Amino acid sequence: MGNRAGFTLGELAETLRATLEGDPTRIVTGVETLDAAGPEHVAFLIDPRYAKSAAASRAGAFLAGPDAAGLPGPVLRTAKPQQALIRLLLLFHPPPAAAPGVDPTAVVAADARVDPTAAVGPLAVVESGAVLGPRVRVHAFAFVGARAEVGEDSVLHPRVVLCAGVRLGRRVIVHAGAVVGADGFGYAFDGEAHRKIPQVGGVLIEDDVEIGANTTIDRATLGNTVVRRGTKIDNLVQIAHNVEIGEHSIVVAQVGIAGSSRIGRGVILAGQVGVADHLTVGDGAVVLAQSGLARDVAPGEKVFGTPARPVLRAKRLFTLEEQLPEIVRRLRQAERRLERLEGQLGLAGPERTKGDDAR
Amino acid sequence: MGNRAGFTLGELAETLRATLEGDPTRIVTGVETLDAAGPEHVAFLIDPRYAKSAAASRAGAFLAGPDAAGLPGPVLRTAKPQQALIRLLLLFHPPPAAAPGVDPTAVVAADARVDPTAAVGPLAVVESGAVLGPRVRVHAFAFVGARAEVGEDSVLHPRVVLCAGVRLGRRVIVHAGAVVGADGFGYAFDGEAHRKIPQVGGVLIEDDVEIGANTTIDRATLGNTVVRRGTKIDNLVQIAHNVEIGEHSIVVAQVGIAGSSRIGRGVILAGQVGVADHLTVGDGAVVLAQSGLARDVAPGEKVFGTPARPVLRAKRLFTLEEQLPEIVRRLRQAERRLERLEGQLGLAGPERTKGDDAR
Amino acid sequence: MGNRAGFTLGELAETLRATLEGDPTRIVTGVETLDAAGPEHVAFLIDPRYAKSAAASRAGAFLAGPDAAGLPGPVLRTAKPQQALIRLLLLFHPPPAAAPGVDPTAVVAADARVDPTAAVGPLAVVESGAVLGPRVRVHAFAFVGARAEVGEDSVLHPRVVLCAGVRLGRRVIVHAGAVVGADGFGYAFDGEAHRKIPQVGGVLIEDDVEIGANTTIDRATLGNTVVRRGTKIDNLVQIAHNVEIGEHSIVVAQVGIAGSSRIGRGVILAGQVGVADHLTVGDGAVVLAQSGLARDVAPGEKVFGTPARPVLRAKRLFTLEEQLPEIVRRLRQAERRLERLEGQLGLAGPERTKGDDAR
Repeated sequence: MGNRAGFTLGELAETLRATLEGDPTRIVTGVETLDAAGPEHVAFLIDPRYAKSAAASRAGAFLAGPDAAGLPGPVLRTAKPQQALIRLLLLFHPPPAAAPGVDPTAVVAADARVDPTAAVGPLAVVESGAVLGPRVRVHAFAFVGARAEVGEDSVLHPRVVLCAGVRLGRRVIVHAGAVVGADGFGYAFDGEAHRKIPQVGGVLIEDDVEIGANTTIDRATLGNTVVRRGTKIDNLVQIAHNVEIGEHSIVVAQVGIAGSSRIGRGVILAGQVGVADHLTVGDGAVVLAQSGLARDVAPGEKVFGTPARPVLRAKRLFTLEEQLPEIVRRLRQAERRLERLEGQLGLAGPERTKGDDAR
Repeated sequence: MGNRAGFTLGELAETLRATLEGDPTRIVTGVETLDAAGPEHVAFLIDPRYAKSAAASRAGAFLAGPDAAGLPGPVLRTAKPQQALIRLLLLFHPPPAAAPGVDPTAVVAADARVDPTAAVGPLAVVESGAVLGPRVRVHAFAFVGARAEVGEDSVLHPRVVLCAGVRLGRRVIVHAGAVVGADGFGYAFDGEAHRKIPQVGGVLIEDDVEIGANTTIDRATLGNTVVRRGTKIDNLVQIAHNVEIGEHSIVVAQVGIAGSSRIGRGVILAGQVGVADHLTVGDGAVVLAQSGLARDVAPGEKVFGTPARPVLRAKRLFTLEEQLPEIVRRLRQAERRLERLEGQLGLAGPERTKGDDAR
Repeated sequence: MGNRAGFTLGELAETLRATLEGDPTRIVTGVETLDAAGPEHVAFLIDPRYAKSAAASRAGAFLAGPDAAGLPGPVLRTAKPQQALIRLLLLFHPPPAAAPGVDPTAVVAADARVDPTAAVGPLAVVESGAVLGPRVRVHAFAFVGARAEVGEDSVLHPRVVLCAGVRLGRRVIVHAGAVVGADGFGYAFDGEAHRKIPQVGGVLIEDDVEIGANTTIDRATLGNTVVRRGTKIDNLVQIAHNVEIGEHSIVVAQVGIAGSSRIGRGVILAGQVGVADHLTVGDGAVVLAQSGLARDVAPGEKVFGTPARPVLRAKRLFTLEEQLPEIVRRLRQAERRLERLEGQLGLAGPERTKGDDAR
C-alpha cells in the first residue's frame, strides 16, 4: 500500500514540523517498518530497542526522536516521533471518504433524523426516532435502534448493533460486530425459576471512545452504563449493566467487567482481566493480564493474579512457590537433625497432639 | 424513562398485591434506584445493605420487604419484593409491541412456515423449511437457517444466527450477535494436516432459556448440544459441541465449556470460568469466577481456582501462600538454632545425601 | 438425520476401503454414536476407552481399527478409522450444494470480480474491487470489503465480516460472526489523550484455515497479520495486529494473542490461553488451558499456569501447595522441639534480628 505519487522529504518535514537531516528533494512513496522498508519508504525509530534494526534498515528515510543516532539515511527528526508517525500514516493512508447520503438498500425509518452530511451504507437499518449527527458514517448491516443517538463524526463499522435508546458521543468508533445496549444479565430466583429483571436503563458512550470488534456493552437495569471520554476498548470485551468506566482508560481484549463496577480514569485493564461486580478500581490503577479482581483496587495501584495482589508481592510469592521443593527438603532435614539431637540427649520424639494439626 | 401519566400508589399496591403504608392517591411516574430517585419516583429496598441509602433517598415511595424500617416515605410492602420489582418495572416499561407480519425487506423462503402472529423484521432471512411459531419476533438481520425451528413467544434480537436445523423452545430470548449451531471444533490429524470431522448433529435449546449477545453455541458432531429449560447464558460465552447444560443453571459472561461436558441442574458458572472437555459438573455446583475445571465437580460442591479446588481449601491455601516469606524466615532461623545446638553438643552438621533431595 | 435410502455394508466397505466382517447386503441408513445407534445405524469405535459402550451397543454395524475386538455386530475394519469416519459422515451428510450465482437481494459492487461458479447469498455485500474465486460461497449477511480477496472453494458463513483488503486463501472456512481485518488496538498517549495510530496493514489467511464463530482477527498496523496454512481457530478467539501463526496449529476457543506475537507451526493453544505481546511460541509447543504467557515458549515445550511454567513443574508445585498446611504444622512442631532442646541445654531462645527477615 502507499501513495503512488509520494512526497518529498522536504514536504514531509514541513507537514510533520520535523527537522530534516538529508536531501529535501528525495521522494518516498510509503511508510514501512524498519525491516520491511526499501529505499522508496520512510521507516521510523521510536523505541530505542530497535536501534539495531534501524542501523541495518534499507529505508530511504527515517522518522526519529531527538536522541536517535546511527541511522543509515536521511532523518526526519522531531520531539514527538509517535505523534508524527500518526500524521505520517494518515498522510500516506488518508481515510476513505464516504459520500453523504443514504444507500437505497438501507432501511431508514421515516421519523429517524439523519443529518444530510451523514452516510448510511447498504442494508443498514435505522429505526424510528434514531438520530445520526453530521458526518456520521453507518456502514453495511449496522443497526441503529429506536431513539438511539450517534454524535457527529462517529463511525459504526459493518454489523454494529446499537440497541434502542443507546447514546453515542462525537468521534466514537465502533468496530464490526460490537453490540451496545443488549439486556443486562439480571434475574431473581423465585424458588422455581430465574425470573428476568427487565433491563430498562440505557448506555451512554462519551466522545472519542473506541469500541472493539464483537465487544458487548450491556444496558443498565436502571440508569446508565457509562463509558467516559477518550476510553479505548479492545475486541471481545464484556461490559455488564451499570458499569461505569472513567476517562482515558484502556480496556484490552477479552476483559470482563461485572455489574455495577466502577473503573476509574486512566486505568489499564490488560487482556482477559476479570472484574467482579460492585467493585471500584481507582484512577490510574493497572491490572495485569488475566488477573481476577475480587476486591477494590486503590488509585495508582498495580495488581496481578487471581485473586489479584500488589504486583511486587505477587511476583515475590511466585518466586517463593518455586522454592517449595527446597523448603520441604530443608524441613525434612531439620526434622532429622532434631531426631539426632533428641536421641543424643535421651529425649523421646515429639508427641502428636490434636491441637498440633494446622488444619 | 418512565410512564408519563404515572400510577397512584393505590393502583400500584393493588397490582403488586402489596400493603401500602401511606397516601394511596399519591402519583409516581417511574422507577429509580434509591440514589437517583426523586419525589416523582418509586424506589426499592431489597438488599438490607442499602438501608442507609434508603434512609437518605428522596424517592416519593418505596417498594420493600417485610422487615425494612426507617424508610422516609410511603412504603409498598410485600413478602417478595424482588418479584414485585419485576412487575413494577414491566408496569412502567411495557415491552414494545411488535406488529405481526413479515417486513417487505425480509427474505423468507417460500416453504418456511411463519405463524401469522409472528413478526419478522427488516432484512431478516428465514431459509427453506424453517418454522417460526406463534408470536415469535425475529428482529432485523436475524438469520434463521434451513429447517430451524423457533417456538412460540421466542425473540431473536438483531443479527442472531440460527444455523440449519437448530431448534429453540418457547419463550427463548437470543440476544444480538449470538450464533447458535456453528460447526463444533473437531479435527483428526492424519500425519499431514488436521482433517475436518463433519459436524452433522444439532442444537436443542429448551423453553425459557436466554442467550447473551455474541455468545456461541456449537452444533454437535452427532446427536445434540443441549441447553435445558430455564437456563440463562450471558454474553460472549462459548459452548462447544455435544455439551449438555441442565435446567435453571446460570452461565456468566465469557465462560467456555469444552466438548461433551455435562453441566448439571441449578449450577452456577461464574464469569470467565473454563470447563475442560468430557467433564461432569454436578447439580447445584458453584464454580467461582475465572476458575478452570480439569476434573469433575460433585453435586453441590463449590470450587475455585485453576485447577479448581474446594473453595474453603483454595482460600486457606491462598492465605498460606501469603505466609511463604515468614515460613522461609522461620525455617532459616530453625536451622541456625539447630547449628547452635549441634555445636553445643559437639555434633557435626548434617550430611547432605542424594536421597534428601525432594525433587 | 441420515440418508433415507441408506447404503449396504458392502458399499461402505468399498467406499471406505475397509475390510468387512459380516453380511455385505445389510443396509444402514445413518451414523450414530455407540450409545445412540440402533440396528439401522453404523457406529464407530476409535478410542479404546469406549470398548465397553461398544460391547453394549445396538448398532447394526461398527467402524473400527485393527485391534478392536468383542464388537456385537458386523465390523468395517480399517487401519485409519478416524479418517474413515470422516468419509462415512460425508457420505451420509453430503454438504448442501450451493447454486452458483448472486442472489438478487445481495449488493455487489459493479467492479467486484465474482467468479461465475461462486454463490453469493441473500443480503450479502461485496464491495468495490473485491474478488471471489471459483466455487466460493458467501452466505447471507456476509460482508466482503473493498479489495478483499477470497480464494477458491472458501466459505463465508452468515454475517462474516472481511474488512477492506483482507486476503483469504483456498478452502478457508469462516464461521458466522467472525470479523477479519478490524483495526488493531494501537494508540499513542500524548499527555492528554490516547491518539489512534492508523492501522493500515492487512490480514493474510492461507489455505485450509478455519476460523470460528465470532472470532476476531485484527489487521496489522503495517505489514500483515498472518495465519498460515492448515491452522484451525475456534470460536471467540482474539488475534491482535501483526500476530503470525504458523502452519497446522490449533487455537482453541477464547484464546487471546496480543500484538506482534509469533506462534509457531503445529502449536496447540488450549482454551482461554492468553499470550502477551511480542512473544515467540516455538514449533510444536503446547500451552494448557487458561495459561498466561509472559515469556517465550521453546519449541516442543509444554507449559501451564499464569505465568506459565513447564507443565511437570507446575503440577509438582500445585501438589506442594496442597501440603502447605502440613508444612506449617511441621515447622511449628520443629520450633517446639527446638525450644525443649534449648531448655534442656540451658540455652536461651533465638534472638530476633532484623537481618533474619526474609523479605
